[in-house]
This record gives sequence, C-alpha cells and structure tokens, in this order.
Amino acid sequence: MKPNEIEALSFKIIDKEAGTHNFPSDKWSIVQRMIHTSADFEYIKSICFHKDAISCGINALRNGKIIITDTNMAKAGIRKSDLDRLGSQVKCFMKDPQIKQIALKNKITRAKAAVDAAITDMRDGIYVIGNAPTALLRLIELVKAKKAKPALIIGLPVGFVNAAESKAALIELDYPYISNIGRKGGSNIAASVVNALIKLALLKN
Amino acid sequence: MKPNEIEALSFKIIDKEAGTHNFPSDKWSIVQRMIHTSADFEYIKSICFHKDAISCGINALRNGKIIITDTNMAKAGIRKSDLDRLGSQVKCFMKDPQIKQIALKNKITRAKAAVDAAITDMRDGIYVIGNAPTALLRLIELVKAKKAKPALIIGLPVGFVNAAESKAALIELDYPYISNIGRKGGSNIAASVVNALIKLALLKN
Repeated sequence: MKPNEIEALSFKIIDKEAGTHNFPSDKWSIVQRMIHTSADFEYIKSICFHKDAISCGINALRNGKIIITDTNMAKAGIRKSDLDRLGSQVKCFMKDPQIKQIALKNKITRAKAAVDAAITDMRDGIYVIGNAPTALLRLIELVKAKKAKPALIIGLPVGFVNAAESKAALIELDYPYISNIGRKGGSNIAASVVNALIKLALLKN
Repeated sequence: MKPNEIEALSFKIIDKEAGTHNFPSDKWSIVQRMIHTSADFEYIKSICFHKDAISCGINALRNGKIIITDTNMAKAGIRKSDLDRLGSQVKCFMKDPQIKQIALKNKITRAKAAVDAAITDMRDGIYVIGNAPTALLRLIELVKAKKAKPALIIGLPVGFVNAAESKAALIELDYPYISNIGRKGGSNIAASVVNALIKLALLKN
C-alpha cells in the first residue's frame, strides 16, 4: 500500500468503528485525526469546541498567522509542507536561553515563561498547548486580562496535575478554543488538531 | 509548585491509581512514564518486554550508542540534556532529501526508506518506532536477515493499518524489544520509553 492509501484506509476504519455521531464534517475531520494519532476513541466523547473555534482557526491560517506551540514535540508534529502553502509558520520558545533563565529565576515552568514571552507574537495566531497545564493557566489569565489575543487556543495538555482543571477553566471562557474534558491530551493530539485545521484551511471556500 | 514537584506528584498519583502490579522497579519506571505521557492506564496491560530489553537498552546508552527515531516528533520528545550526559545522541532520517527521493521513487513510506538508510548507523544503538508500522516491518525483515543489529528495538507504532500486526511480529522475535499489544502507541509514547531508559542508565550501578 502507498502512504496515502494507508491514511485513507485508516480513516475508513475509524469512520466505521466510530459508528453514528453528531459532528458536522469539519469538526469530524478534527476528531478523526485525533483518533488516527492515538487509536483512542475516547476523544469522541471528551472533545469540546467553542462555537467560533473552527472559523477563527481557518481564518488565522488562511491569513498566514503564526502558530505557537508549548513543546518542540508538538511543533515537530505539524506538517510543514501544508503550512508553507498557507504562508504560515510554527514557532516554539521552549529552547530559547532567555526563557530558561526566566523560568529558573522565578521557579516556574519554561512553558509558563514562554507564554509571557509570546504575547506579541501570538496576536491573531494560534496558541497550541499539548503538554503544560501551567502554560494554559497562564494563557487564560492573560486572555482574561486582555493582554493576550490569539485567534484560537488549542488547549490539550495531558497529565495528572492540573491538566483537567486547566482545560475546564478554558472551556468556561467565551473565547475560541478547541479542548477536551479530562486528563488525556498531549503534544501529538494537539499537533493532530492543527494538522486537521490546516487541511480545512487548504480546502477551497 | 515547581516543575520537579509537579512530576513527582504525577508519579505518586499514577502509583496510587495503578494499584497492585507485578512489575519490578525498572520496568515499572518505564510503564509509569508511558502513563504520565498519555494519561492512559491501558499500557499496564498491553506493554511487552523482551527479557533482555532493559539491560541491552541501558548498556547501549551507557556506551553512548546512537538512538534513531522514525519521526522528528519522537526525536523532539527525547530529553537531550540527559542524553548529553551519557554521550549519546538522537538522529532521525525523515527529513533527509535522499530518503524523500527513494520513498517517492519506490512508492514506499519515508519511514521504511529511512530504516534501510540507517543500517550502519543503528549498529548496537536503539531504534525507536512510534509511528510507522512499515518501518517496524522492514526492521524486523532486516533483523531476521541479520542485516540490521540494533541493541534494542522500541516498537510502538500507533494506528489502524498494520500497527498491531507489526508489533505482534516483533513480539514473536527472540530479540531485545519493548513493545505493546494493540493499536495504541505513538511518538510521544516511544519517546517516554526512551526517557525512562535514559533515567535508568544514569542511575549508579
């Protein structure tokens, strides 16, 4: 089988095993890719979309706005060739020596320090969090204070300490987000959501 | 909470919720990190270790042997600072222009083409597959033919087409592997296994 045939067959199996659901095709293309990445059908039940999430995400991508990720792993998972076609780019501040210094000095996670450093860059872009609840909580603070204005927040941190809580706080906001309920998530899941959005953005209007 | 406190608390919660199990401490440190990365306790049941896997993996790392990954995402997930202390490095051939050409020409996945290209580099090193069943199947072929000789295979591809089958074929081999049963896995999971092994390798004998 050729690579594109493997992907097509995977999606066919996912569609079959997922059974009936109420997602419109754009949202389903995102959920489908989350399942493709994890082989975990739980995302069907746990995913949450803000009503404006998909339109805001597509809009940002079509306008070549930046994507910022909380980990280099999420960055590595985003398909660069498709992103190039949109004139967009992906950036991660985690390895920035300044971020490391600020984090050490203030005894905070580098992911949290990176959110502060990205305020200007993230304007009208997409902020992607697949790992660090501390980053998501900080971003929520900044959005509430109207200091940060990303077009879309993809908030899918994974883990046992504050991951579920930070996502619950995001879902309470009336702000464009894609998130989920519970502990699951991850850099791979967050990247899969971005990749699905990129595919939607590349579709003709 | 400081970053190291967050990790310690996460592991404490995982220990508590996992309940009783039969893993010795070295194997448990690997399973624990897989759960930490995915919030998925299913790995307790699905993980499989070849009897020599951990000793061979630690040995390779302590001797500064190379780690090769099938994706840049798995590469990005491996903790470089710890790896530096061992004198080891991580490499991924996926973006190599030659690999792309070979894959296109032969209508195979780049991950499969990358395995062939890595035969010399992988000698006595660790080959990590978190994404592509085609890569794992090719590696198994080469190992059987005694053309490839990694010290350890971490075979954890995820997905719906041949992921479970390729891992079943790996588990049948009498060759050092860490793998699991079923469709789940991924670049993040594979990287978490490497990171746990690195921690073990850094422990004093």
